[in-house]
Amino acid sequence: MYYLGVDVGGMSIKAGVCTQNGDIIARGTVETRVYDETYSISLDIHAAIVAAIANSELTINDISAIGIGQPGSVDSKGGIIRYSNNIALTNVPVVAELKEFYPTLPIFINNDANCAALGEALFGSGKGFQNLVFITLGTGVGSGIIIDGKLFEGRDCAGAEAGHTVIIKDGNQCNCGRRGCWETYASASALIRQTKVAMDKFPMSVMHNIAKEEGKVSGKTAFIAAKVGDFGGITVVNNYVNYISEGLINLANIFRPDVIIIGGGISHEGVYLTDKLNALMQDLNFGAKYNPSVKVVTATLSNDAGLLGAASLCF
Amino acid sequence: MYYLGVDVGGMSIKAGVCTQNGDIIARGTVETRVYDETYSISLDIHAAIVAAIANSELTINDISAIGIGQPGSVDSKGGIIRYSNNIALTNVPVVAELKEFYPTLPIFINNDANCAALGEALFGSGKGFQNLVFITLGTGVGSGIIIDGKLFEGRDCAGAEAGHTVIIKDGNQCNCGRRGCWETYASASALIRQTKVAMDKFPMSVMHNIAKEEGKVSGKTAFIAAKVGDFGGITVVNNYVNYISEGLINLANIFRPDVIIIGGGISHEGVYLTDKLNALMQDLNFGAKYNPSVKVVTATLSNDAGLLGAASLCF
Repeated sequence: MYYLGVDVGGMSIKAGVCTQNGDIIARGTVETRVYDETYSISLDIHAAIVAAIANSELTINDISAIGIGQPGSVDSKGGIIRYSNNIALTNVPVVAELKEFYPTLPIFINNDANCAALGEALFGSGKGFQNLVFITLGTGVGSGIIIDGKLFEGRDCAGAEAGHTVIIKDGNQCNCGRRGCWETYASASALIRQTKVAMDKFPMSVMHNIAKEEGKVSGKTAFIAAKVGDFGGITVVNNYVNYISEGLINLANIFRPDVIIIGGGISHEGVYLTDKLNALMQDLNFGAKYNPSVKVVTATLSNDAGLLGAASLCF
Repeated sequence: MYYLGVDVGGMSIKAGVCTQNGDIIARGTVETRVYDETYSISLDIHAAIVAAIANSELTINDISAIGIGQPGSVDSKGGIIRYSNNIALTNVPVVAELKEFYPTLPIFINNDANCAALGEALFGSGKGFQNLVFITLGTGVGSGIIIDGKLFEGRDCAGAEAGHTVIIKDGNQCNCGRRGCWETYASASALIRQTKVAMDKFPMSVMHNIAKEEGKVSGKTAFIAAKVGDFGGITVVNNYVNYISEGLINLANIFRPDVIIIGGGISHEGVYLTDKLNALMQDLNFGAKYNPSVKVVTATLSNDAGLLGAASLCF
């Protein structure tokens, strides 16, 4: 049995032909663009699926079902993207549109971070835990919450939006309409903004050389600089880790899960990141000396958590 | 069948003899004091229970079980107060201590806001809803969360501490150890502090007269002033409502419940309070135009939600 998992992201739409054991046997990718009434995102999801199948030795007849992970508020029962802020979309009936191409296949859709949480719970760092919070630090900050082994979606699948909890009242403008959302401080995009500000402030910082070599300022720039002892880099990383930790400790105090899993590009910093986060968590979670501790770990499936989790919607 | 509900608060410990229908047929109260190794809070809980039974026409033999609502982190399985910040307590084995007085009675304990959430869900504003968040604005900000009709406690009952989520990073010092916790801005104690600051700033405000008449600055002072159009009072109330709303919208985005219920002394402001909160909620929850709305209402059981909910632990 093969399942098609699709991970919709701000930069690209990735499809994968997956097995129930969590193997991805073929992949297809298309770039994400701007969508409107004349060109639906469903067309690009379809294109990514076609590309993935073309890269396998299978045909569409070998696929049992399709699962899609999509940023924002997704009506998983109705198969509708209700609202996405980073890829601007509202009320797109994706499942109905894809049914035109795949009339006989079951098609599932859920929030992308929810999918990644499922992927990590089934095949990654969350294996064996019944209660976990998954956070993805990417274009935005996504979150997926698993309680008693079950995905928690909130009423009409519109909950679990921890990226849109305010940690600094009246702070940075978020494109969701509020000011001060965690996402505007803790996402990879926010880190890049913070790095650029620090580079202006520290003209002698090694971050300039690193960015030149990389061809751009990225989510890695400050981390690379910090690791070689650059003051500017250390300042950026420490502030950024603090921003992440504020939201993580908030979630620990609300959910007190077995584990918090960090995914997305930034999670590649591994223990360099989680050691700092665990130290802050250890000191500052509510009743830290008396309550069970909450451990922060990085995702082990890397960028595949969302894809595998999307496929697992079909299982 | 009669059940004893006990609601432990920062000012007093209230006990009530309750029926399964939510009637409180007799009450007993003792003042909360400072507790240490020489005098356990269990003794005052016992005293409140004795007073309640003395005020009924019953004896202890008519009581089927005892339920206790206690602020802070409570190990509901082990019957232990693990950590409370407002009434300073750590690792108090309350259930074992009370068993000395009531060896044959089942004794249950849970977080006070969890109890109030249960009380409102069973007998108050939450009746008929399967998913609700209850917030109590008192000495601190407590929260109780009901998901699919079941109390959500987090691992080892140490979750659901929404009062200790930071809404202003590096803000007010909270006695939990963090800075900027919602509790330090949205509790009744915070409102009183905010009112005092505004009274210093607005020497001509009617708040001075109101406080003089009341004998003190209370959680009502600014609300009374605002309702007669006093500029200082309006400023305090608007800021305070904004602080409350930041946390409420955070919780709506995470849980997307059917309803958010406000309890505690401040909830007596009724629709004057909830109209303002609902307007902010309506505009600012994530994907507000596309997602199901979340309504904010006040508790209908007033101060009895905690007591009845504590009793309902026995049902």
